[in-house]
Amino acid sequence: MRRLASSQPGFDAEFTAFIRREDERETEVADRVGRIIHEVRTRGDAALLAYSRELDGVQADSVAGLEISRERLEQALLDIPGRERDALRHAADRLRDYAECQRIDAWQFEDDDGNTLGQLVRPLERVGVYAPGGKAAYPSTVLMNAIPAQVAGVGEIILVSPQRAGETNPLVLAAAALAGVDRMFTIGGAQAVAALAYGTETVPAVDKIVGPGNAYVAAAKREVFGQVGIDMIAGPSEVLILADGSGNPEWAALDMFAQAEHDEEARAIVISPDADYLDAVAAAVERRLDEQPRAAIIRASLAAHGALIHTRDLDEAVDLSNRIAPEHLELALDRPDVIIDDIRHAGAVFMGHYSPEAFGDYCAGPNHVLPTGRTARFSSPLGVYDFQKRLSVIQASPAGAARLAPIAATLARGEGLEAHAQSAEARAGGSDA
Amino acid sequence: MRRLASSQPGFDAEFTAFIRREDERETEVADRVGRIIHEVRTRGDAALLAYSRELDGVQADSVAGLEISRERLEQALLDIPGRERDALRHAADRLRDYAECQRIDAWQFEDDDGNTLGQLVRPLERVGVYAPGGKAAYPSTVLMNAIPAQVAGVGEIILVSPQRAGETNPLVLAAAALAGVDRMFTIGGAQAVAALAYGTETVPAVDKIVGPGNAYVAAAKREVFGQVGIDMIAGPSEVLILADGSGNPEWAALDMFAQAEHDEEARAIVISPDADYLDAVAAAVERRLDEQPRAAIIRASLAAHGALIHTRDLDEAVDLSNRIAPEHLELALDRPDVIIDDIRHAGAVFMGHYSPEAFGDYCAGPNHVLPTGRTARFSSPLGVYDFQKRLSVIQASPAGAARLAPIAATLARGEGLEAHAQSAEARAGGSDA
Repeated sequence: MRRLASSQPGFDAEFTAFIRREDERETEVADRVGRIIHEVRTRGDAALLAYSRELDGVQADSVAGLEISRERLEQALLDIPGRERDALRHAADRLRDYAECQRIDAWQFEDDDGNTLGQLVRPLERVGVYAPGGKAAYPSTVLMNAIPAQVAGVGEIILVSPQRAGETNPLVLAAAALAGVDRMFTIGGAQAVAALAYGTETVPAVDKIVGPGNAYVAAAKREVFGQVGIDMIAGPSEVLILADGSGNPEWAALDMFAQAEHDEEARAIVISPDADYLDAVAAAVERRLDEQPRAAIIRASLAAHGALIHTRDLDEAVDLSNRIAPEHLELALDRPDVIIDDIRHAGAVFMGHYSPEAFGDYCAGPNHVLPTGRTARFSSPLGVYDFQKRLSVIQASPAGAARLAPIAATLARGEGLEAHAQSAEARAGGSDA
Repeated sequence: MRRLASSQPGFDAEFTAFIRREDERETEVADRVGRIIHEVRTRGDAALLAYSRELDGVQADSVAGLEISRERLEQALLDIPGRERDALRHAADRLRDYAECQRIDAWQFEDDDGNTLGQLVRPLERVGVYAPGGKAAYPSTVLMNAIPAQVAGVGEIILVSPQRAGETNPLVLAAAALAGVDRMFTIGGAQAVAALAYGTETVPAVDKIVGPGNAYVAAAKREVFGQVGIDMIAGPSEVLILADGSGNPEWAALDMFAQAEHDEEARAIVISPDADYLDAVAAAVERRLDEQPRAAIIRASLAAHGALIHTRDLDEAVDLSNRIAPEHLELALDRPDVIIDDIRHAGAVFMGHYSPEAFGDYCAGPNHVLPTGRTARFSSPLGVYDFQKRLSVIQASPAGAARLAPIAATLARGEGLEAHAQSAEARAGGSDA
């Protein structure tokens, strides 16, 4: 694992190179995805079924055969072990409580001239949730993506998730039932994204597609953006543990493992002005790594993307944290409240020693769909607001129109748009069309 | 101009074909844009300057020579005619009043176990605004894109706008001064988007790029999305006038002209259950079209994309309006309040006979940057919220951690993520790392 210190010569260049993640897009993937989208868009179910057979190995002879009924989802929720059902229920309840606070509200005001100005809010009508299949078939993904849509009041939530060897994870089905999924299809890849974006005879077109996926899914979402809304293009997951040395280094090591076990591209960093603490974290990592079931993945992730960074003081650590703009930021401090106002960029902030990222991944309440790869500079966690949209409302009074008309007309003529000016002036009583 | 009636056989198919706009992306444009972005990203100022000389015909011998100082912006505001300055000021004030209502606020709550959960809000640090040059150099564009950023508290607003024959529109400079633009460069096209996304020696990298542009600018924004945030990919502008026949048909004709004069791709539609009213609108269009300075553009737009649609009743008109999801929706009704709750999709709604779209284009208060091409199904007007982002915050109490840990651990093990489970359980006091 990399060790860096801000006092070393050349640190800044090394740090900059380290945090830089190339936004790599493979032309070959984009080309194949473009073809798949074109086929599904023009040939509908026939193309969707053909790709699902070819790429996912499904056996069905119609797309309808790939639909899982709401009854089967409900049944899966009854069939899973009680302990897991209780955990899913508890997590769903907490997610819902948090999401309720995120609703955008309508507002309006009347100005001095009697004009009413405001903002309406409407839920999206139909949303598609993509949940990866196979080894990354996570029920938590279903909860995190579907519950905010449910709380927003989305009319219909459609879940797509590819089968793996003809099987669908029963926990995923149970989570779908809990999260209010209305319809589910066991389809995946670019063909599932295309089906949701353009609709087929069987799969209805949606207004927005959310959820993580592999390079093909990401490329497909990028391609259909504009036809439908999308959430974000997720990159590798990251945690930054900003520590003052007051915490347990073993906990930091476990938190690094939890991040690194996702996949080899995941990134775990500890940054601290306390060199002894960093040494202790390094030792704990060495000591406990081998006992991890996913030790090989963790080792590869830490070797390629992990780092322990020593800073001169806590302020410098905060500054570097803002430059990283991490997806997950753990403030492993006795007094995280002292520095929180200086944190400008992060997806989610975990305050103090008792708030590991794992709580946020599953059940604390906030969403685990978070901006990665420095996009926390401009993006927010997935939330209810992603499933609502605003409409501006303007109602001018006759008196207000008389005052607005000359302003609009002056600006319109300054832009050479005479019809705009006349349209405005018609309402002023003067020109009277 | 097209005439449709919902009672005609085949109406539904004709209507569907009519409202469908192909999201055309030219591969050739994308390829050229890809090369430009690559060059500016790797060679910085040198490439930016070379493209600006080649494509925009600028004479400068450095990128610094293309910067317009804040002082020149302020001077432009002093130099323009008083009537235009007053109109810009009035518009800016109204935009700001409306924008103040759009701020996202932080919130937090404590649950029964003493866990604190919440959401922080931070402004973006640096934003780039693209304003087209040449015939579409609109000061209103600068106000509409920069003022919400200013109200959000964005640290630095950078305006880019290409020169036209070595000149920059003084109204654009004045609007930039009013809207709080910090730096301005007279650069444009894909090279300006690339410079803002990746930064050059002279142009600083921004966190988000907003503003309209031609096909090259749109393709460049699509390409750099992910490296920076973008607003939306704007398509041709549209107005739908939903009328019950109580309004003045001349006003409707002028409102159609105002939309159609933008360009040949713009779309103006009137939809009404009142056939006589539609006839009167058609007559007014014929009678008054020739007096319009931009009659040729208006005629081409109305011929290609305009329509008068007769419906059986008002409910059907509302239903078709929702299917169109128009950028601008004028409710030309005596009682627009009766149907507003049924309007599900629109960028901005103009209520009643005294609220022409032109007010919203310039000075009513709401933003004129609105979702086009049916994207109002999932997108909102540009607003202050586009220049803020949220951070989730989680602070578990020791007691709360003890309750959350087994839930998180159960779900983590269900997903095969043992380190997540251990990281959670370490905080429960039980395993104590």
